[in-house]
Amino acid sequence: MRLSRREFSKLGAMGLAAQALPGAGLQAQDGNRKVGYCVIGLGRIANHFIGGVQASSTSRITGLVSGHRDKAEQFAARLGVPKSSIYSYEDMDRMRDDKGIDAVYVALPNSMHAEYTIRSAKAGKHVFCEKPMSTSVSDAEKMIAACKDANKKLMIAYRLQYEPTNLRAIELIRQGALGKVQVIESANGFYENAGEWRLNKALSGGGPLMDVGIYCLNATRYLTGEEPQDFGAFVSTIDHDGRFDTVEENTVWTTKFPSGIVASCSTTYGAPMRSYYRVYGSKGWLEVGSFNYEGLRLQANYRSERGSPATVLDELNTERDPKQFTRETDHFTECILQNKTPKTPGEEGLRDMKCMQRIYKAAGVEAL
Amino acid sequence: MRLSRREFSKLGAMGLAAQALPGAGLQAQDGNRKVGYCVIGLGRIANHFIGGVQASSTSRITGLVSGHRDKAEQFAARLGVPKSSIYSYEDMDRMRDDKGIDAVYVALPNSMHAEYTIRSAKAGKHVFCEKPMSTSVSDAEKMIAACKDANKKLMIAYRLQYEPTNLRAIELIRQGALGKVQVIESANGFYENAGEWRLNKALSGGGPLMDVGIYCLNATRYLTGEEPQDFGAFVSTIDHDGRFDTVEENTVWTTKFPSGIVASCSTTYGAPMRSYYRVYGSKGWLEVGSFNYEGLRLQANYRSERGSPATVLDELNTERDPKQFTRETDHFTECILQNKTPKTPGEEGLRDMKCMQRIYKAAGVEAL
Repeated sequence: MRLSRREFSKLGAMGLAAQALPGAGLQAQDGNRKVGYCVIGLGRIANHFIGGVQASSTSRITGLVSGHRDKAEQFAARLGVPKSSIYSYEDMDRMRDDKGIDAVYVALPNSMHAEYTIRSAKAGKHVFCEKPMSTSVSDAEKMIAACKDANKKLMIAYRLQYEPTNLRAIELIRQGALGKVQVIESANGFYENAGEWRLNKALSGGGPLMDVGIYCLNATRYLTGEEPQDFGAFVSTIDHDGRFDTVEENTVWTTKFPSGIVASCSTTYGAPMRSYYRVYGSKGWLEVGSFNYEGLRLQANYRSERGSPATVLDELNTERDPKQFTRETDHFTECILQNKTPKTPGEEGLRDMKCMQRIYKAAGVEAL
Repeated sequence: MRLSRREFSKLGAMGLAAQALPGAGLQAQDGNRKVGYCVIGLGRIANHFIGGVQASSTSRITGLVSGHRDKAEQFAARLGVPKSSIYSYEDMDRMRDDKGIDAVYVALPNSMHAEYTIRSAKAGKHVFCEKPMSTSVSDAEKMIAACKDANKKLMIAYRLQYEPTNLRAIELIRQGALGKVQVIESANGFYENAGEWRLNKALSGGGPLMDVGIYCLNATRYLTGEEPQDFGAFVSTIDHDGRFDTVEENTVWTTKFPSGIVASCSTTYGAPMRSYYRVYGSKGWLEVGSFNYEGLRLQANYRSERGSPATVLDELNTERDPKQFTRETDHFTECILQNKTPKTPGEEGLRDMKCMQRIYKAAGVEAL
C-alpha cells in the first residue's frame, strides 16, 4: 500500500498514520508516536530546526548532543527531553540504545558533518544533515556509504526544495510558462565579521560558495532539472584584514547546462549582497528575491504568445520562520515512516559537492 | 590656453567658443560656426543621433550618406542639408571636397564600421563611430591607424560614459562610498525577432555580446577603472527556429580584475532580459537599472561605517532621449575644436573588441 502525502497527513491527523504505513515497523507501534530527533550541535541553525519540529505534528525532539552540558540541560528542560538523552560529542555513540531517538539532525560546522553523520548511522540512527553536506567529495561519499551500510536514511537539509515559493517557480518553468529558459542569474552573499567559524577553513571547508553560494548552485540545478555540463569561475580576496587568511572572499561562476541554459552566479563574504535568482525564458521571466527563512517573494511576468497580454505574478509567501524547517523535517519523517528515499538524499548533497569542487577547479583552486 | 568644459560651454553660449579655442584653426573662423556631421547610414540609431545634434548648440548635420536617395532627400529637406551633400555609399569619398562636413557619424551595421571609418578618414573627416567598433580586432586596429595617418580624430559612441547617472555611479565608487568594491553583476538582453540584421553574423560579427552585452562589459571596465585580467564564458543556442543559424543566442561570462574585483554578466537575444548593473562594496551597493536612452535610475545604499545610518539614494535621471546623443556629440565636437583626445577614442573600442574576443575564446569560440 502506498499513501499519497495528503492521505498520509489525513491519517496522521487521525492518529492512524503509523499503523497504516508499511515499513514503519517497530518504530511505529504506537499510532501517536512521533519520530524522535536528536539535535547534534546547539548553535543558531539548531534553534530554527527545533522551532520547526515543535510546530510539527509528525516529529519531536528526543535527544541533544552538545559540548556544553549546562546549555544542553536548559534545552532539555524546555523541550521535555529526558536528561538521559543528553550526550556529549565523546559519548554520543551510546544513543544506539536510546529507543526514543530515531534520527539525528546534524547542525555542526561543515567539517564535522561527515564524522557525526557516520557515527550516527553506526549508532543506528537516520541522519538529517545540514548543507553543505561535507567539506570534501570523499567525505560525502563516505557519509552515503555509511548510511547505506547501516540501512539508515540520509537527507541533506535543502529546505528551499520543500517550500511553496520555490516549488511554484519550478512548476511554472516545467509548465513552460516562461517558454524556453535561456539564462539564470543568481547571487547570495553578505558581509561576514571577523571571528565567525565560516572564515575558518578547517571548519567551513571554503569561502562563501560553501555556505551561501551553494543556494545559487542548488537553485540553478533544481530550476533547470539538469546537471551542469561545465563551469567557468574566479575567486578573489580583496580585504586583507585577517578575515580571509584561510578562505576566499568572493566567487563568481558561470555554468552551462546540457540543454544550453546558461547561468551566471555570484557570492561574497565581503559585501552586503542582494540574494535572489532570476530566470529568463523566451516568453518571460521569474524571480525569487531571497533564500531566507521567511518572506520569500515570487515575481513573474510572461506571455503565452508574443504580443499577448502579460501574466504578472507577485506572490509573497507569508509563512513565518520556522515553517520551512517544519516542512523539510516532515518530509524526512515521512520517508522514515514510509521507507521512502528523501527528495534530497545524500546523493543530492554529493552532486553539489562535486559541482563546488569543479567551480573551485575552474577558478584554479584545488579544493574539496 | 586650456578651457574647462564649463568655460567652453559658457563661451559657446556667447558664440565665442570657436574664436577662443586653440586648434580650432580654419574650421572655426566664424564664431558661430557649428561642427558639421555627415551621417552615414539612416537607420534607427541615426535618428537618435540626429535628434541629439538638433538639440546641440555646438554641432549640426551637414551631410548624409545613404543607399536610398529618396530617403536621404527627405532627411536633407528636413535638416537643411544641401542636396550636394547627399552621398551614396559608392561616391561618399567625394566628401573630401565638402567643406561643410568636419566629421562623420558611422551608424551602419557593425561589419561596415571599418570600411566607412577608414574611407572617411581618408576623405579628411573626423570619425564618430557607433559601438561595437568593428567585427574584428584587426579591423579595429586598422581604423585607429587610418585615423592616425589622416591626422583625424576617432571616437566610439559609448554614450553612457558621457551621461550623468553613470558618471555619478563612477564618482560614488571612486569616492569610496561603497567601500572596497567586491563584485559586479550586469545583464543586458532582449528577444530578437527573425530577420533583424543583428542575427546575420556577416553584418553583426556575433550574437548579443556584440550588440548589448558590450554595455555590461564596458560598464565593468568604467566602473572599476581596470582592465580585465581573465575571462570565463559560455555561449549557447537553444532555439533552433532559424534565428540563430549564424550567431549564438546566449552568452554568460565572469571576469576577474587585477584588484580582485570579480564580475558576472549575462546577455541574450532569446529572452526579455532585465538590463542593469549592480556594484557590491564592503560598505554597500549601487545599481543603475538600464542602459537605455532615457529614464536611467541610480539606486544606492551604503554606510560610511558598519552600523552607522545608511545613505539611501534613488535618483531618476529625467533627461529625455536624445539628450545622451547631444552629450556625446558635444564632447566629440569639443575634442575636434580644442584638438583634444576623446574620452572614448578608438583605443577604448579596441579594448572592448579584445575583451569580446577573449570572452568568445573562453567559451571555446574562435571569433573577432
